[in-house]
Amino acid sequence: MNHKFVFYTIGNIIKIEAVLMALPLLVSLIYRDGNYIAFLIPIILAFAIGIFLTIKKSKTERIYAKEGLVIVGLSWLIISFFGALPFVISGEIPNIINALFETVSGFTTTGASIITDVESVSRSLLFWRNLTHWIGGMGILVFILAILPQTNSRSIYVMRAEVPGPQVDKITTKVRYTARILYGIYVGLTIMQIILLAFKLPIYDSMINAFATAGTGGFSALSASIGGYNSLYVEIVIMIFMFLFGVNFLLFYMILLGKIKSVFKNEELRWYFGIVIIGIVLLTINTLPTYGSLFETIRYTSFQVVSIITTTGFATHDFNTWPDFSKAILVVLMFIGASAGSTGGGIKVSRIILYFKKIFRGIRYAIQPRKISTIRLDRKPVNEMILEGLSTYLITYIAIFIIGILIISMEGLDLVSSFSAVAATINNVGPGLNIVGPAGNYSSLTDLSKITLMFMMLVGRLEIFPILILFSPSTWKRK
Amino acid sequence: MNHKFVFYTIGNIIKIEAVLMALPLLVSLIYRDGNYIAFLIPIILAFAIGIFLTIKKSKTERIYAKEGLVIVGLSWLIISFFGALPFVISGEIPNIINALFETVSGFTTTGASIITDVESVSRSLLFWRNLTHWIGGMGILVFILAILPQTNSRSIYVMRAEVPGPQVDKITTKVRYTARILYGIYVGLTIMQIILLAFKLPIYDSMINAFATAGTGGFSALSASIGGYNSLYVEIVIMIFMFLFGVNFLLFYMILLGKIKSVFKNEELRWYFGIVIIGIVLLTINTLPTYGSLFETIRYTSFQVVSIITTTGFATHDFNTWPDFSKAILVVLMFIGASAGSTGGGIKVSRIILYFKKIFRGIRYAIQPRKISTIRLDRKPVNEMILEGLSTYLITYIAIFIIGILIISMEGLDLVSSFSAVAATINNVGPGLNIVGPAGNYSSLTDLSKITLMFMMLVGRLEIFPILILFSPSTWKRK
Repeated sequence: MNHKFVFYTIGNIIKIEAVLMALPLLVSLIYRDGNYIAFLIPIILAFAIGIFLTIKKSKTERIYAKEGLVIVGLSWLIISFFGALPFVISGEIPNIINALFETVSGFTTTGASIITDVESVSRSLLFWRNLTHWIGGMGILVFILAILPQTNSRSIYVMRAEVPGPQVDKITTKVRYTARILYGIYVGLTIMQIILLAFKLPIYDSMINAFATAGTGGFSALSASIGGYNSLYVEIVIMIFMFLFGVNFLLFYMILLGKIKSVFKNEELRWYFGIVIIGIVLLTINTLPTYGSLFETIRYTSFQVVSIITTTGFATHDFNTWPDFSKAILVVLMFIGASAGSTGGGIKVSRIILYFKKIFRGIRYAIQPRKISTIRLDRKPVNEMILEGLSTYLITYIAIFIIGILIISMEGLDLVSSFSAVAATINNVGPGLNIVGPAGNYSSLTDLSKITLMFMMLVGRLEIFPILILFSPSTWKRK
Repeated sequence: MNHKFVFYTIGNIIKIEAVLMALPLLVSLIYRDGNYIAFLIPIILAFAIGIFLTIKKSKTERIYAKEGLVIVGLSWLIISFFGALPFVISGEIPNIINALFETVSGFTTTGASIITDVESVSRSLLFWRNLTHWIGGMGILVFILAILPQTNSRSIYVMRAEVPGPQVDKITTKVRYTARILYGIYVGLTIMQIILLAFKLPIYDSMINAFATAGTGGFSALSASIGGYNSLYVEIVIMIFMFLFGVNFLLFYMILLGKIKSVFKNEELRWYFGIVIIGIVLLTINTLPTYGSLFETIRYTSFQVVSIITTTGFATHDFNTWPDFSKAILVVLMFIGASAGSTGGGIKVSRIILYFKKIFRGIRYAIQPRKISTIRLDRKPVNEMILEGLSTYLITYIAIFIIGILIISMEGLDLVSSFSAVAATINNVGPGLNIVGPAGNYSSLTDLSKITLMFMMLVGRLEIFPILILFSPSTWKRK
C-alpha cells in the first residue's frame, strides 16, 4: 500500500472541498442568514488538514488498483465528515449522525433525508446540501482529475473505481483530456438547466434544483418536492434533464464529435429509453382509475418513472398511494437504475442487458450443451472475464442488500419500509415506500439503521468494492 | 428432437402414475368414502394413454440434453394433469385450476394449498394429495430410473435435470445402481418415520405426514398444520426427519459405505447445520418476548427454521404474527433452501456457499487484479464453467422471481403477500406471509395468479431450464 500517495491525494480532495464550501458561505452572506461561521470553521479546518497532508509530495510512481479504491472509499468518508460540519455547527441538524446521514446522502446523490421541515432550513445550508449532490454526481475524483494539473496515467485506477458502470475501458486513453470533456459537458448541461428553470423559478431555486438533477440526487427545497412548484413547465424541464443526466456521458462526447449515428445505435440508450416508455405505459394503465384524466396521469407517471430509473428521487405526487403493482414497478426501476457512465445509480442498464443476454445464453446452452456463444454489446464481443465480474457484482449486491434488510428490520419497521429503505439507498434513489416514502423521511429510524443505510448509499454509489475493501484486513497489511 | 423417445418415456411415466393412483383407490375402499370412482376413471385413462404412447418402442439411441429436459418438463405437466382429475371428479375441488394448483403444489413438493377447510376433505383424496409430495420428492424420474429395467446410460440427462443442485456429476457412473440406492434410502427413511410417528398418531396420519416430510412438501391433514397435533414428540420426530430429508442423499449413501469421516467433513452439511443453528438463535432472541418461556420459544423457532430451510412449510405456530425481523429471516431461509441432492427446494446451500466464495474472490480480485484464485468446494477445485452456470442460474432465478411478483401484484394484493407468495412457491416452501401465511391460503387469488404460481413451483422444483426450454421455439424446431 502506497500510503503517501493515498494521503497526498486525499489531502488535495479535502482542499477542493474547502474551496467549494466557499459557495454556500457566499450564499449565506448574500441572504444574511447568519450561518457564515458554520461554513468558515469547516473551511479553515479542511484547509489546515489538506495542507498538512500535501506538504510532502508523493515521489513513488507505484500505484495499483488497491490504492485507487482506497482513495475513493476513504475520500468519500472524509468529505462527508467535513461536509456534515456546517449542519452541526449551525445547529440546524445538531445530531452528528443525522448530519452525516444528510451529507452522505448528498454526496452519494441519494437524496434520502432526515429533515422533517425542509422549508425551515436556512438558504445557505440548503444550497450546500444540494451542492453536495452536484459535487457527488460526476464523482469528486473525476472532478479532481479534470482540474488538477498533476494527474497522469495512474489516475485511471481512481477513475475506474469512480465512474459508474462496466464501460470505463473506453476512456482509459488520454484520461485527463477525456475527464475534462466530461466535466465540461456536466457543467454545460447544468448551466442550460439553470437557465431554463430560471424562466419560471427564482435563480436560487433554479440552481439548487439543477444541482439535484445533475447529480441525480433528488434533495428538494420543498416538502412536496417538485410537485410543490405546481408548474408543468418546471416538471417537463426537470424530467428532460433527469433523463439526460441518466445517459452515458460518452454519448454526449460522441455527439460533440459528430458521431450521431452511432449514438442512436447505442444498445444501452435504446434499452434505457425503451424501459422508460414501458414503465410509463404500465404505470399509466395502472393509475388511470386513480386520476381519471389521461393527461394528468401521464404527467405524474412519466415524471415518476424518469425520476426513479435515473435514481433522482424527485416526486410530483406521493407514489406511495399508488396501487401495489405501480409500486412494484417503481421498485424494479430503482434496481435497474440509469445508464453506465451517467450520474445515476442502481445496477445500470448496460449490466441489466448483459444479465439478460446471459439468461438467454443459459437457455441455449441447456438445449445444446456443446455450444457456448459469445455475448455481444454494441456488436462487440464482451470478454468472459468481464461477464464473470458482472455476475460477482450482482451476487455481492444482493448479499449486501439482504444483510441491509435484516439489520433494518431489527428495529421493527414493517417489511415494505425496511425493504424499500434499503432499495432506495443502495440504488441512490432517496425516497422508498411507507414510512420512508415521498411523504415521509428517514428521521425516525434508529442510529444503527441510519449508519447501515449510509453504508448502503456508499456501497451503491461507489459500486461496492471501494467500500468493501476498506474493511478487508489485507488492504491494510504492510508487506 | 427425438420425439419417439420423448413420447415413449412419458408414456411409461403415465403408466407408473396410474399404478400409484391405485394406492388412494385402496384407501378409498378401506375407509369407504365413496371416492373410488374418482380414482378409477383417471387410472383407466392414464393406462390407456400410457399404453398408446409405449406401443412402439423407441429404437434410436440418439438422445441429448434437450430430450432429457423436455421429458422432465413435459412429464411434470402431464402427471399434474392426471393427478388433478380425482379432485375434480370427486367434486371436492370442482374448479380445474384449483385442482391443478393443488396437484402441481403436491408434485413439486411445495405444499401451497387452495383448500380452505382441509378437515372436510375425504381421506382418500388427502392421501393422494400427500402421496404426490412423496412421489415428487425424490423426483418421479429418478423413481423410474430405479425401477424400470430398460434404463441405460443415456438416462443421465434425465437425471441431471431432475436431481436438484449442482453436484450430480458424482453419480453419473452406474446411474441405475446409484438411483436404486438413493431410492432405497428414501423408502427406508420414510418407513422409519412412519413407524416413529405411529407411536403417537394413527397409522393414516403417520403415513401422510411422513409422505409430506419425505418430499419436503408440507401439506397437512389439519388446518393448524403440525401444531394441530399438539404433541412435542410428533414435532421432534418430524423436525428431525425434515432435517434429514434436507441433507444430500449421497451422504447417506456414503454412511452406508462406511465413509462417516468424510460425511462430517462435508462443507455443505456443515453450512446447512450452521445456518439452521444461526437461524434458531436469531429467531429465539427475537421472539422470546412474544412467548416468555425459553423452552416454548425454542420449540416453535427450531421447528419453523428447519421447516422453512428444508422448504417443507409445516408450521406449529402462525409465524406471520412474529416480529418483522423473524419474518425477514424466514424469507431468507426460503431462498437458501436445503442441500443439493436432497428433496428440498430453494437455491440450495451448496450454491449459496459458492456464491459467497465468489464474493470473496471478487474482493481479493479488486485488491490484486492480477491474481485469480480457484474456488474450491470440499477441497476440490470448482470448474469455472460450473461457476459461470451457477451465476446464470441465480440471475435467471431472480429475473423469473421479479416477473412473478409483477404479475401477482397486478391483482392488488399487498406487496408482502405478493412477494412472499412468489418466494414461497418458487422455493417450493408453501406458506408465505400475510394473506398466504400459515393461517391463510391461496384460494382467494385470481386464476392468472394461480397459473403464475404453478409456473413458479415448476420452475423452482425443476431448477428452471426444463420448464423454460418448453417455451423456447428452437426446442420444437425440426432440423
